[in-house]
Amino acid sequence: MALIVQKFGGTSVSDAERIRAVADHVARTRRQGNDVVAVVSAMGNSTDDLLRLAGEVSSTAPPREIDMLLTAGERISMSLLCMALADVGIQAASFTGSQAGIITDTAHTRAKILDVRPDRLRAAIDAGIVPVVAGFQGVSTEKDITTLGRGGSDVTAVALAAALGADVCEIYTDVTGVFSADPRVVPSARRLSRISFEEMLEMAATGGRVLMLRSVEFARNHHVPLHVRSSFTWEPGTWVVEEEDSMEHAIVSAVTHDTSEAKVTVLGVPDQPGIAAKLFRALADRSVNVDMIVQNTSEHGTTDISFTVPRVDLATAVEVAESLRDDMKFTEVTSDASIARVSVIGAGMKSHPGVTATVFETLANEGINIEMISTSSIRISCVVDESQVEDAMRALHEAFELGG
Amino acid sequence: MALIVQKFGGTSVSDAERIRAVADHVARTRRQGNDVVAVVSAMGNSTDDLLRLAGEVSSTAPPREIDMLLTAGERISMSLLCMALADVGIQAASFTGSQAGIITDTAHTRAKILDVRPDRLRAAIDAGIVPVVAGFQGVSTEKDITTLGRGGSDVTAVALAAALGADVCEIYTDVTGVFSADPRVVPSARRLSRISFEEMLEMAATGGRVLMLRSVEFARNHHVPLHVRSSFTWEPGTWVVEEEDSMEHAIVSAVTHDTSEAKVTVLGVPDQPGIAAKLFRALADRSVNVDMIVQNTSEHGTTDISFTVPRVDLATAVEVAESLRDDMKFTEVTSDASIARVSVIGAGMKSHPGVTATVFETLANEGINIEMISTSSIRISCVVDESQVEDAMRALHEAFELGG
Repeated sequence: MALIVQKFGGTSVSDAERIRAVADHVARTRRQGNDVVAVVSAMGNSTDDLLRLAGEVSSTAPPREIDMLLTAGERISMSLLCMALADVGIQAASFTGSQAGIITDTAHTRAKILDVRPDRLRAAIDAGIVPVVAGFQGVSTEKDITTLGRGGSDVTAVALAAALGADVCEIYTDVTGVFSADPRVVPSARRLSRISFEEMLEMAATGGRVLMLRSVEFARNHHVPLHVRSSFTWEPGTWVVEEEDSMEHAIVSAVTHDTSEAKVTVLGVPDQPGIAAKLFRALADRSVNVDMIVQNTSEHGTTDISFTVPRVDLATAVEVAESLRDDMKFTEVTSDASIARVSVIGAGMKSHPGVTATVFETLANEGINIEMISTSSIRISCVVDESQVEDAMRALHEAFELGG
Repeated sequence: MALIVQKFGGTSVSDAERIRAVADHVARTRRQGNDVVAVVSAMGNSTDDLLRLAGEVSSTAPPREIDMLLTAGERISMSLLCMALADVGIQAASFTGSQAGIITDTAHTRAKILDVRPDRLRAAIDAGIVPVVAGFQGVSTEKDITTLGRGGSDVTAVALAAALGADVCEIYTDVTGVFSADPRVVPSARRLSRISFEEMLEMAATGGRVLMLRSVEFARNHHVPLHVRSSFTWEPGTWVVEEEDSMEHAIVSAVTHDTSEAKVTVLGVPDQPGIAAKLFRALADRSVNVDMIVQNTSEHGTTDISFTVPRVDLATAVEVAESLRDDMKFTEVTSDASIARVSVIGAGMKSHPGVTATVFETLANEGINIEMISTSSIRISCVVDESQVEDAMRALHEAFELGG
């Protein structure tokens, strides 16, 4: 008998029929002898609908009130799921973030969980009741309602699984698991049955859309095994688990891509200590998130610095760089919004030094120019022209024999 | 500088435009130097929409979950009102029933308020912030979310006004006040500028739809003056206040009507002590709410008992009566679903004994037969055939010169 936290996203509870299907699945899990805690997101697009309504009412919506508004969404889905569970003979009770003991800081619309006090949930479980918990929401140390920001429902599920000592946190979504590449781009991509937290973190950070970085980090830090699977087919999906030394690692597990960034290059920067720091401090002060940074080896006493930023921040980044021209004494700022990043990820890479060479040869054979490179011990990322990213993905996927 | 509780019903916050209009009015009240606490219902028909959704999901919706579901409605309207207030430069903060300190019993979907602990509201008021409170909801002594049943938002407003010692509780609705009769039936009906709690109680009990009996009782018991007015015209409406001895009372203030009841008559009941009690105990056991009861003077050792019940309970009431035939040894049960009650109400009636005679004469002149009569010290109610109730209302309204 296991304790299973099951998290159902918006597409999994988008209408009455889907909610009844979820109830059937929770009932099945329960009747197999497991204890279950369900965590739900708001139904389908209801969060967007509420935000649209807010836009009609007000142009200066205070964050505290945005949180109060949005948390209505999970209230609706969780109470409906409890009703559907009652219909199939399962005793259930809904709990708001506050009732579930999700204590957060006071940063409205992007709160962080400070503590989880799941006393009421544990009492419910002990009484044979399935707690159905509102994802995405908590109560602040000031007793105000907060939301956890993007991917917040996953974070709720993982945090509860950690606090309750659950055996697994199942993340139900509209895909059947984590794939070796985006199947829309690489038709031969196959579902991974098992990957390590480290690989999943690298995937989340480089364009894999199934799980947010934040919930994977939380799961890794608290040793909560994740199982990503489909609420449409209910088949087993991808397990995300701690790396075991005894495991025979695939050299490369997956290829990811990301087309949300742009590249900025500052040319002719005097090669003196502290010059680059001025630029990145100024960018940070404007809340521009810099991802990759590459600095050439100095020639003739100057260097070129390239970095990537989210495309939405490109104009700001260029403006910040230009404003430092007199101070930094560089020659020129150029930018390119049509870049893409392709990454190969694999825990086995650590012990196989030939991977970088294979990546470069493969891209060269396709006539694809590499504009920037960044690596970690289990990842190699290349910035290429956006028009070539899909070719790059297919070639790398084939080169590392990732196909099904 | 006064403290004013303003309650806005569903039609007053039915869409973005109406919510902005409410925000303007709260801002106006605030800028006149008053402290304001706003209490809101769910937007328009959103409660019905949520119940429909519940019906699609489940056939056995547990009351606890119905409450969790429905309370999403006020969460949406109150946060939107706070946003609209921010737009017009008024600092506001929303509070759930729980945050506002509305403590109830555990009777889900029809909870009663046990205590009000408005510490957070008072702190907000003292800080110059307008609290916007979710009507209709509270938190039970078991820390579960509850709703207060029909008319619950008015009860919330009155309870907060009492707990905060407010100078007035303004009930904003889609009519301009309390009328001397339903203007759709009696075109000459006029708005009453001032009536006593006792009159308002009698009106609410006999078909006046503007205020529920429950909130008027609460206001009377806690000495909270009510001001019923329109959120469409914002003009002054009807004050409901404590009766003052110095007041010159109108003999009759209003004529009300009610077509929601049916009549049951049990014929030939042996005139023995305890026989009638059996009948009304049996009805109470089946939760049938008996309103008027009339028992004829006994002749030939038997009597006839007539009583009225809600039409929805008529079949049950007849079934209950029939089941007692052997026990009570009556001769027959008859029923009539097409009755109506017309009532004249006025605090001045106490000192004017001729009112009953005028009522009877007026109805007789119209050829209207009175089937049952019941009176209080400030009310005379007559059951007539439903087809004649509008004629009866117009005739009585004219006879007592209530027209504008």
